[in-house]
Amino acid sequence: MKLLCTIDFMEIKRYTDERMASTLKIQSCVLETVHRVFREEGFTQIMPVILSTTTDPLGPDPSASTIKKGEIEYLGQKLVLTQSMILHKQMALMGKLSKIFAVSPCIRLETPDRGATGRHLFEFSQVDFELGGAVMADVFGLMEEVLCEVLKDVKTKCHRDLTLLGRSLLVPTIPFKRFTTHELKEKYGDDWEASASKLAKEPFWVLCHEREFYDREDPKRPGHFLDYDLIYPEGFGEALSGGEREWEFDRLVKRITGGGKSTEEYGTYLDLAKKGKLRPSAGGGFGVERLVRFLTGAKHIKQVQLFPRVPGEEVHI
Amino acid sequence: MKLLCTIDFMEIKRYTDERMASTLKIQSCVLETVHRVFREEGFTQIMPVILSTTTDPLGPDPSASTIKKGEIEYLGQKLVLTQSMILHKQMALMGKLSKIFAVSPCIRLETPDRGATGRHLFEFSQVDFELGGAVMADVFGLMEEVLCEVLKDVKTKCHRDLTLLGRSLLVPTIPFKRFTTHELKEKYGDDWEASASKLAKEPFWVLCHEREFYDREDPKRPGHFLDYDLIYPEGFGEALSGGEREWEFDRLVKRITGGGKSTEEYGTYLDLAKKGKLRPSAGGGFGVERLVRFLTGAKHIKQVQLFPRVPGEEVHI
Repeated sequence: MKLLCTIDFMEIKRYTDERMASTLKIQSCVLETVHRVFREEGFTQIMPVILSTTTDPLGPDPSASTIKKGEIEYLGQKLVLTQSMILHKQMALMGKLSKIFAVSPCIRLETPDRGATGRHLFEFSQVDFELGGAVMADVFGLMEEVLCEVLKDVKTKCHRDLTLLGRSLLVPTIPFKRFTTHELKEKYGDDWEASASKLAKEPFWVLCHEREFYDREDPKRPGHFLDYDLIYPEGFGEALSGGEREWEFDRLVKRITGGGKSTEEYGTYLDLAKKGKLRPSAGGGFGVERLVRFLTGAKHIKQVQLFPRVPGEEVHI
Repeated sequence: MKLLCTIDFMEIKRYTDERMASTLKIQSCVLETVHRVFREEGFTQIMPVILSTTTDPLGPDPSASTIKKGEIEYLGQKLVLTQSMILHKQMALMGKLSKIFAVSPCIRLETPDRGATGRHLFEFSQVDFELGGAVMADVFGLMEEVLCEVLKDVKTKCHRDLTLLGRSLLVPTIPFKRFTTHELKEKYGDDWEASASKLAKEPFWVLCHEREFYDREDPKRPGHFLDYDLIYPEGFGEALSGGEREWEFDRLVKRITGGGKSTEEYGTYLDLAKKGKLRPSAGGGFGVERLVRFLTGAKHIKQVQLFPRVPGEEVHI
């Protein structure tokens, strides 16, 4: 029998390589620590959502790309694949829980050129968390604890794996340094993220990014935003994005339409806001594979993904 | 502004209800215990896979249904949504790891009538695990430990939530009882699962199901299968499906074509088998929401899913 798809030696080798096993053991250790810290901090783990009526609008600008969002039709209803759980996190906080997290797969059908950045995948998993009634400082403290605990545990429990991968790690000093986008732009130009990350020895925060509609605009300083990125050192770039959130109907409508998007995409979400059901919160999401890439020192993120999902590269398995 | 989608009072109430918060706390406790036991038993947690070239063929018979499998096109490649991680679990064992688990979302676009069974969702999460070189008895021991530990922890840590939900739970006796499909069919007829589950006070195993091609046929007794279901008592039905696996190329081809399916769907997977890269294993998968339904005593599984995904019911959020 002739098989339509075959797999070459090099592709098989990635599955059987000792480096892959060590990488996966480090990833498993990361997940253990992340679950532990979130539980110790009183978070309830909720399940991921894959198909829904609406999702985070981020991703390639539809007008600049021929790639559509992932979408299927089921029993007459159009359902989109989750790009991030942000809107569902806000809605999950409508109830009696005030601290939630999920380990959530994200599908972002990136343009093929993103495959060369070394840090983009079209499918990955994100640890996504949200705290009702919280402000930025709450997230800084929590996330710094998560990252330091992960680094300590990986150094202790995965010592042999790190040695095999030729990687040594430092536990950073708390609190992490904080900059604003404006400062870094002035210092490094438009490519500030890459430059600042390359020069840094420890992770650092960057505040005040103009991003999607759900990140809160500072009511005291319009044009400034109560959001943040966490950036890894050594050129590994963005670790986490997050922010305080918009939750009031009028603000959401203003931000959505102001960003050139249609409110039609956010029907039920906006209806809940209009009924006063959403509430203030802050949170963030960090990619599991990007964290494992940083921990293992991998050149390309596909080296840490068992079944690689790289924009522009064929999927074998 | 008029909103296209609005949400009614009853639908909002489900999010803000105390029963939902208690259910989610129980679910979070389940996940904590499951992660703990699998780690204690030496398992490495791997990430779920959502989009791939091939997936478990289970689900509605395509000839009997007008519903297609979930599928998208990305950069010229057709990718299907995971129905279960079985094939990827087998491939993940090609390397140096011999015990793996994932908490994996599954998309199964069921026919709308399945919404009435009380236990079908078109999207849910499954704890999917596989042990290289293992046999059925290994899975029985492991899964009985997992379920008893979950029951003990939920009884202890979620006592107030169980009281609020009016549910009391028993920790079953180990080892669980074992029957064959043949025995139960003879006793209860074709609807044996429902009848036997309703009458049972404790979970029990049912062995020897003719199912998908990857469940191993007993080489000594053709027509008999080295696989199993775990069934919850009190009418809650199926908890887990699993089995020893087929891994040899000739056997896989025989089972796939014998089941009326085409080998074309399984290109790389079969190529790996042909190259001798797959290996014997046994494992299983249990649905998180079905387990939470059993623990909470919910009449319909949608009562335990924060964002309900019921076949035939419109998705609001």
